[in-house]
Order: sequence, then C-alpha cells, then structure tokens
Amino acid sequence: MAETSDPVLVEVLRGDRVESRHRGAVVVVDADGGTVLALGDGAQAVFPRSAVKVIQALPLVETGAADAFGFGQKELALACASHAGEAEHVRLAASMLERAGLDETALECGTHWPTRSEATRELAREGRTPNALHNNCSGKHSGFLCTCCHTAHETAGYVKPGHWIQEEIRAALEAVTGAEHSEANRATDGCAIPTYAVPLRNYALGFVRMASGQGLEPERAVAAKRLMTACMAEPFYVAGTKRADTLMMEAGAGRLFTKTGAEGVFCAAIPELGLGIAIKCDDGQARASEVVVAEVAARLFGKDDALGARLAEMARPAVRNWNGETVGSVRPAAALS
Amino acid sequence: MAETSDPVLVEVLRGDRVESRHRGAVVVVDADGGTVLALGDGAQAVFPRSAVKVIQALPLVETGAADAFGFGQKELALACASHAGEAEHVRLAASMLERAGLDETALECGTHWPTRSEATRELAREGRTPNALHNNCSGKHSGFLCTCCHTAHETAGYVKPGHWIQEEIRAALEAVTGAEHSEANRATDGCAIPTYAVPLRNYALGFVRMASGQGLEPERAVAAKRLMTACMAEPFYVAGTKRADTLMMEAGAGRLFTKTGAEGVFCAAIPELGLGIAIKCDDGQARASEVVVAEVAARLFGKDDALGARLAEMARPAVRNWNGETVGSVRPAAALS
Repeated sequence: MAETSDPVLVEVLRGDRVESRHRGAVVVVDADGGTVLALGDGAQAVFPRSAVKVIQALPLVETGAADAFGFGQKELALACASHAGEAEHVRLAASMLERAGLDETALECGTHWPTRSEATRELAREGRTPNALHNNCSGKHSGFLCTCCHTAHETAGYVKPGHWIQEEIRAALEAVTGAEHSEANRATDGCAIPTYAVPLRNYALGFVRMASGQGLEPERAVAAKRLMTACMAEPFYVAGTKRADTLMMEAGAGRLFTKTGAEGVFCAAIPELGLGIAIKCDDGQARASEVVVAEVAARLFGKDDALGARLAEMARPAVRNWNGETVGSVRPAAALS
Repeated sequence: MAETSDPVLVEVLRGDRVESRHRGAVVVVDADGGTVLALGDGAQAVFPRSAVKVIQALPLVETGAADAFGFGQKELALACASHAGEAEHVRLAASMLERAGLDETALECGTHWPTRSEATRELAREGRTPNALHNNCSGKHSGFLCTCCHTAHETAGYVKPGHWIQEEIRAALEAVTGAEHSEANRATDGCAIPTYAVPLRNYALGFVRMASGQGLEPERAVAAKRLMTACMAEPFYVAGTKRADTLMMEAGAGRLFTKTGAEGVFCAAIPELGLGIAIKCDDGQARASEVVVAEVAARLFGKDDALGARLAEMARPAVRNWNGETVGSVRPAAALS
C-alpha cells in the first residue's frame, strides 16, 4: 500500500459535524484501459479478497463442470458469492456438493456463524451450530470442488497454492487483470485459499474485460458474461437479504455488476457503458466502500437516470440510534462529488 | 474534525504486506496540562461517545444515590460500562433499577441484541429476545434513573437535553474537561442522550484530573477516584468477556484505567504516572483504537515493566483465517513506535 495520502472519500456525520472519515482510492477504466476516473493511488497493490470471486469461478464454467452438474444461474451466482449463511444459501451449496457426490466435510474453508445475524439467531433457536456450509465462501468452495471432481483432480488440499485448481485460478486472474500473480505477491485469504496483491487499476481493467469480453479469449469471454449475468439475475445468491451487493444489483436489474471484498475493496462493472470500477478504502471498512461504489456508479449513470438517482440515495444512508431516530448520516466527501 | 492529515497509527498486514491502515490522533498530558505525547491534531473536536461514561456517572456518586441504594464496586463499574449484554450484566442492571423501585420499562436507551455474540446466541437458544437491559448502555442508564429517583426528579424523558440529569452531566463534563459543552457542539448518542464534541486534548486532561483529583473540587475528586477504582477492580462489568477494556484493566490490576467509545475513541489514565490519554482514530474503527491505547500505555509503562510488555503484546494481535491459521497481524505504525 502506498505511503502517499489517499483523499477522504466518505464522511460520517453525527448531527451536522463530521465524526469520522474514510480515505481511499478509486479507478474507473474503459475496455481499452483508458482512465475515466482516478482518485487516490491507483497503482497501489491491493489484495482483492472476495471481490474477484467471479474471476475465480471461471474454471467452473470453462471446464464444463457447471454444465455437467446442471448448474443454473442460482448455482453460478452462489459460486461467486460472499453469502450471508441464510437457509437458502446453505441448502444450495449442499446441493452443489451433492451433485458431485460430496458433502460439507469436503470443504476446507473453515466454519463460522452466518454473517446475517438473523440467520445466526435462527440456527441458535433451533439448537444447531454452523458447519462449513455456513461459511460465506461455501458456494465458491463448492464450485472449486465440483470443478476438481469433473476434471478428475484430487479434492483434498484444493485450497493450497500449487493445487491444480488454485493454479487454474491464478492463471485466470493473471490473464483477466493483466497483472502478475506469483508467490511474491501472495498471501492467504480468510477462507484459506491464496490471495494476490496487484495494482488497483488492474482490477478495474479486469472487470470491464469480464463485462465486455474485450481482451479475453473468446471462450473465456462467454464464460465471463455467463457468470456476470447470473450474478446480476440472482443477486440474493451473491450476498443475501438487505446486503449492499444484493440491493445494488436488484436496483440495477442487469445494468450493474458489483462485488464486495473484505478490507474495503469493491469491484464493479457497468456493461452498457463499457466501464470497470475498482475501489479500496484504506482503513478496510465496508460502510465506506459501499458508499463509494454507489456514488461512483450513480455519477456514471447520471442523475437523469432513475438507477443513478437510486444509487445516489444508497450512497447517503442515515445513522440511527437504538430508538430508530436519525442522529447522523454517511455521505460521499467533496473529492467524490 | 480537522481537514489536516492525521498520521497512520496502525497497520493491518496480510502476509508481510500492509493491507489496510488507520490514521488518528493521540494526546497524553500530565495533571498540569503539560503535553507528554501528541500525534495528529489534538485540537480537533471529537464526540467522546461512551469513553466518558465515568464522568457521566459522577452525579450518581455525588448526589449520594449510589450509597443510598447500596451500590458496591460492581454496580459503579456497570454504571460506567459499555457492557456486552452477558447474563451477569443484565441481572445487575435489573437489580440496580429494582433498588430504585423501577424495571427495564423505565430505560429509554433502546434495545439491541447483546454485543457479545455468544450472549446473543444464548438468548436465541432459550427462545428469548432482548430488552433494554441488554443494551450496552443499560448500566449507565440505570445509574441515571437511580440518581433521578434518589433526588426526586421525574424519570420520564431523562435522556433529553434539558432534563435535570442531563444538565448535571453536562456541567460535570464541562468542569472535568475544561471545555464548553453547549447546544452548539451537541448531537445525539446511540443511546439517545446528548453527546458533545470538544477538543481531543481536553479529554486527556479530563482523565488525568479524574485519576489524580488535581483540578477538581474535593468532593468531586473523591467521587472520581471511587468510580475509577471500581472500574479497575471490576473490569468485567465495564465491558465483558475478552473485550479490550476488560483485558487491559485485568492486566493493569489497578494501574491502568481505559474506556472505549464508539467511532474509534479511547480515553485512559495511568494514576501512578499522573497521565491522561485520549485517542481518536479518524475512521472510527475499534480494532485500531484498541491497538493505539495498548501501545501508548505500553510505551508509558516501559518495556522493563511486565505490564508494559503485556500491553505491547496486546498491541500486536494476530489476524487468523477461519481455520485458525495466522495469516497476518495488526501492529502500531512507525509514527507510534
């Protein structure tokens, strides 16, 4: 991460005073790599975390595994998801594994209570505890396992660098983003697979390529479009009830792809405008990156577009107290507007 | 909040790369107001949020309410707490109200599920839902209500600016911090009471005054010492299982007072050194402010003091993935060391 100072992109107000502020960087590029918007350091190397799951899912489609197991848009969306551990997410991940003759014991992502607090309380009320299917990455990992089964690769150890599926993913990430992915820029993600830090600008380029197909091999372009279309068609399976990706893609109705990643990362694409977007909030907070992606997309669609207006609203959430009274707000800072 | 750039105080690493970073300001002063350490903008006006609960509890002691209701150190600690909603916290808050002839319906702080996820799951497993006693501020509000009952003031509307208890608290905050608290710098806290933005440096001064008594009226100095001593003696009741304030004050064994506030605020005092500490992380994240307060206190005690060494460890927590493997770390940045 650059030592230079990224601008303040988001302000959190209590009453009419700024209480907290978030710095970060944004890059928007077209399919030729031309810069449409750049704030902060777009050259800084960033771990994308879960924001690149749609790229990590390319082998699932490209190997024919998705078709062999009869996966529709919901399954493909779940393979690109950071889901909230709701009952529908868990059931669908289990069904993906079952079609490959596996169950949750094959998952190597680890276990955590559902991200959605209501889902956690529902489990607890039923006297149950979570398993690896409740992990927000279980759909992605199920996709990895199905790809391994379909291609007759060993499933044990599929999360480790050097395993066939992780090498396929590394090659896909490298081809799509145009940036080197190697041991030198590798670390371990929360779900145990490798994650690579590459310049923020390369994610913006990667996402416009995924959306447009420009710069990708023809077969890859088809797979990319299929995955992005699935996510936009089934946004509940990409995230879950009332979550940012779900709300933005529901509002977008096929015109906007977004995907959050841990530590303040967001990647997005606007197919009709041929634009890719990449965001990193320096401090890693989702409340800031969610505002930035909504505001940037709002600006790109424009105020006269109903979707632009809706996204601009989403970029200005209220802060409420425990009695439900509005006591503040979150808003894009001057640098963004 | 100042427009100038506060320094990076905390870095979050994944592997050996900085993944996220947190900026902020720190002020350490002695009881004469002399500056011992200053990083970032100490003149910026900051909402202290829950970090000043020990000051807000002064009327409970000073009016004689605490003695009239037979409150010991646990009750006083809970009156200064942002507790985790664990069963012991809820029971004690209920018992404080009961001694004043009240129950949870008198609380105007609002309701939320317990901060500690295990406590939330325990409630859900029992088929229960939370009430206002589970609100992290219920001990403080119970203290307010007991003070109103003891002094024969109306309890309804006790959270509103202008109510007698809020005026008493405002006067105490003003006297202790030496900064004006008025409608001009007032907003509403998460638990519905007023919160005032005053310069960060004034909190550092306020906390050394609370710890030393210097600069306070004699009766107030006794009340301040009694409250701080209670918090240091019963840190579980100030926060809860495995929470930062509890861990630091347990380690401190009477030598360190700390109190977190929402949006990245921390106030602390080291009685034996006669020092007050105030911290604001610009982006409002507790993971950063917890590291800053531990590192600053570690430096002030020094490496050769076992407490200093323990706090320095706390200032360098590991980042783990869902399989429990260490994949990164959080550490004080260069400006802090």
